[in-house]
Amino acid sequence: MIDVAIIGCGPAGMSAALTAKARNKSVVIFGNGILGNYLYKAEQIDNYLGCPKMSGENMLQTFLDHVKSSEIEVKEGMVSEIFPMGEGFTLNFSNEFISAKTVIITTGMPKVKSIPGEDRLIGKGISYCATCDGMLYKNKDVAIYIESEKEIEDVRFLSEICHKVYLFTKTERLIGLKVLELANVEIMGREKIREIQGDEAVSGVIGNTREIPVQAVFLMRESIAMDKLIKGLKITSKHIKVNKKFETNIKGVYAAGDCVGKPYQVAKATGEAQVAVLNAIAYLDK
Amino acid sequence: MIDVAIIGCGPAGMSAALTAKARNKSVVIFGNGILGNYLYKAEQIDNYLGCPKMSGENMLQTFLDHVKSSEIEVKEGMVSEIFPMGEGFTLNFSNEFISAKTVIITTGMPKVKSIPGEDRLIGKGISYCATCDGMLYKNKDVAIYIESEKEIEDVRFLSEICHKVYLFTKTERLIGLKVLELANVEIMGREKIREIQGDEAVSGVIGNTREIPVQAVFLMRESIAMDKLIKGLKITSKHIKVNKKFETNIKGVYAAGDCVGKPYQVAKATGEAQVAVLNAIAYLDK
Repeated sequence: MIDVAIIGCGPAGMSAALTAKARNKSVVIFGNGILGNYLYKAEQIDNYLGCPKMSGENMLQTFLDHVKSSEIEVKEGMVSEIFPMGEGFTLNFSNEFISAKTVIITTGMPKVKSIPGEDRLIGKGISYCATCDGMLYKNKDVAIYIESEKEIEDVRFLSEICHKVYLFTKTERLIGLKVLELANVEIMGREKIREIQGDEAVSGVIGNTREIPVQAVFLMRESIAMDKLIKGLKITSKHIKVNKKFETNIKGVYAAGDCVGKPYQVAKATGEAQVAVLNAIAYLDK
Repeated sequence: MIDVAIIGCGPAGMSAALTAKARNKSVVIFGNGILGNYLYKAEQIDNYLGCPKMSGENMLQTFLDHVKSSEIEVKEGMVSEIFPMGEGFTLNFSNEFISAKTVIITTGMPKVKSIPGEDRLIGKGISYCATCDGMLYKNKDVAIYIESEKEIEDVRFLSEICHKVYLFTKTERLIGLKVLELANVEIMGREKIREIQGDEAVSGVIGNTREIPVQAVFLMRESIAMDKLIKGLKITSKHIKVNKKFETNIKGVYAAGDCVGKPYQVAKATGEAQVAVLNAIAYLDK
């Protein structure tokens, strides 16, 4: 069982990991690599002490090199759900289940906006993990939304078990990939999911120009809305609610960096994450 | 008038200065250089993201190089007092008086312990600035306490104007310097000032073995106790009291880093200082 599981591989997550390591705790960072970080595209940053005039890409790479030189494991991929389990937590990491004693959420700036109907229908046909829930919809019609080529495997898997798969993508770049020459996959082109319908369970999606009856909607986002990551996590005005110790309302779960509030700045994020992890360690040592 | 005056040249002060500069504000750091920082002697630090396995000395030098490459002015010396003045503040910087609209205190870990009697007799014969107050004690007997060779000049100055000067030092290293071959300076050797006496005004000091009648005591410490820096600054259990915005109880005065509380860590200090200065800038812009 990992002492400290860190969700998110931005400056906050990497800073927390370094301090956990320095304090001799087992630590793993779960994240989608540095490309997804909004910092990646920053032309130049000059207000992070010790790293003068660096591009965002260069800074993130410098940080990642530091973390790797400290022999900290970085697992690439997404944690879609965290369940309290006994004294700790179980993380669903692309359907690999990993146990951790404490969790530090450093998922960055809130980016995910729910689709109308989504929040109401979670667990009633809305899924964030094809591998976990696909079999529930064997021979049914389903919709899937993907944001990168990584999720093509999920489309392929659903096409094998479902009757029909309607594929929505974030960018047109993804349209027309050869992998999608599957008879029962319909590529929705520029259609977006505007609304998810259903009373007791998902019954369909409303696109720009069409309504499509489906029994399930798989939302394969690169990041997951924070309040869907752990059930009951308290959010206030888009940010995770934390106290001065960076404790969330769930015991053993801490949060730091952009996901807990502005300013969205590197030093602020790394500093908060350090305090968060030191409090997690104090909690572990009790 | 400077927009942001930063008191202290450790990681917090330097971080605050970078963000002030990035936000196009005029900023000056006042500090005693990096040698006085307790980080200076750290053998190795590996939990400040982006600076792997650095000695404290190397890290502080890297930070200072960054600050200087950003054309931020660093004034070496000590700010002994800060007075509210109109819309801003006046800083007593070795008897040069400098105006600033806002102040960020980043003086580091509280190190200074008052001498019994000191707090009670401030302004009644206790002084932290020989240049400022020396003339008040012309032809009187005085005691002076110094912590480094830098203050030898103060001893020389007092010997010129006072009748007799009793010299107390922090370390024996300072004893017997040739500059002290002054007829009216008595070097107190291993004597320490145990207590300062006086009712309405200073009347003497109690050493280890002797009592010495004096009319003034000059305490030339490398750092000044935080509550003596600005009158009325609220301190709680040794640290400066700040709110979530790192505002102190005095409007326009912010504090961050070790001086506001534990953990005494680089990332925590730089992050807090960034938030503090951004709030100072918001205050300036109003």
